[in-house]
Amino acid sequence: LRLILASNSPRRKELLGHTGLHFEVQASTYHENDRWENPAKTVEMLAYKKGEEVFHKQSGDVLVISADTIVLLDGEIFNKPDNREHAKEMLFQLSGREHQVMTSVSFFYRFNNLSQHKKITIKTLVTFKHITPHLMDLYLATGEGDDKAGSYGIQAKGLLFVDSIKGSYANVVGFPLSDIVVVLDQIAQEYGAQNYVEFFKA
Amino acid sequence: LRLILASNSPRRKELLGHTGLHFEVQASTYHENDRWENPAKTVEMLAYKKGEEVFHKQSGDVLVISADTIVLLDGEIFNKPDNREHAKEMLFQLSGREHQVMTSVSFFYRFNNLSQHKKITIKTLVTFKHITPHLMDLYLATGEGDDKAGSYGIQAKGLLFVDSIKGSYANVVGFPLSDIVVVLDQIAQEYGAQNYVEFFKA
Repeated sequence: LRLILASNSPRRKELLGHTGLHFEVQASTYHENDRWENPAKTVEMLAYKKGEEVFHKQSGDVLVISADTIVLLDGEIFNKPDNREHAKEMLFQLSGREHQVMTSVSFFYRFNNLSQHKKITIKTLVTFKHITPHLMDLYLATGEGDDKAGSYGIQAKGLLFVDSIKGSYANVVGFPLSDIVVVLDQIAQEYGAQNYVEFFKA
Repeated sequence: LRLILASNSPRRKELLGHTGLHFEVQASTYHENDRWENPAKTVEMLAYKKGEEVFHKQSGDVLVISADTIVLLDGEIFNKPDNREHAKEMLFQLSGREHQVMTSVSFFYRFNNLSQHKKITIKTLVTFKHITPHLMDLYLATGEGDDKAGSYGIQAKGLLFVDSIKGSYANVVGFPLSDIVVVLDQIAQEYGAQNYVEFFKA
């Protein structure tokens, strides 16, 4: 079975690599700024649309994994920042408070001409310490938050002000790896394999 | 002011590097298997003894940061594993359950001949999913857990079975970086600087 990761995120690529599986990367071109009736529906639909686009380009047996992550404060979605000034504004809003990170993962798979879809959506709470002006300057200068929802990355220098989290850490990095492993095992078992390692080797 | 990290852990080195500060590494030779009356006292004393040893070798103005991390399940301390079989036993005990990770950080500093000490001890709860036999084999084979308390690392392949955490993530990786930054700022302010960046530049 071919496995395709429908995301250009180096963090998702690294996380999926931990499974030991070989996979290709084919990013979708789907526009990330579309919105649905609420944030949960939005993140699910964005992940769905990205995966669907890549899945429809494939023929034969294949599994496509796609994902979208949003950062939410007071019900408002924080995207990737437009520029450093915008990043600074976002980070000051998140400073000293708890926000939500929601990631949805879509699994599109076709095996013997039968196409199926599964999805999981996981929410993690993240609390920032108060971001002092010197830490803000230090952080913005690294550029680490430039391409990230909420203007921060949790896997490196963002840890300078991340006080605590409640829930899946991997979910904040890119996607909820341990939950994805459970779904991979479920898919494997639908086809009579014991687990995903056995299934993908076959 | 010279800054010394009294730890050989590449993870602590990476975390402290995020502060932007220059520092030396001088690991202590203190024996990690000593025990005190309870786990919290043990982790604090281990961090203290490591830092004290390195601090006493220095002269002049200096700040030494040391740390120790323990993994606790049902009040029992999980050390680094003796071998892969031991690692497997530990991981099966942690499988599907919540455990505690406790890290203590000691700050020994001397400025104008006045020596001082501060410490922080931070607890994080980590919940594992059930570790399936194939994931166990995959994980052990990577050797990632060989040199780590509790036989796993949370910053890479350990995420295959880490379900959720409650508290500081950096604390589980190596030490609680955002709490350390707060202490560094406090020390800086004791000496009339606004923050650690200004203090260490002076």
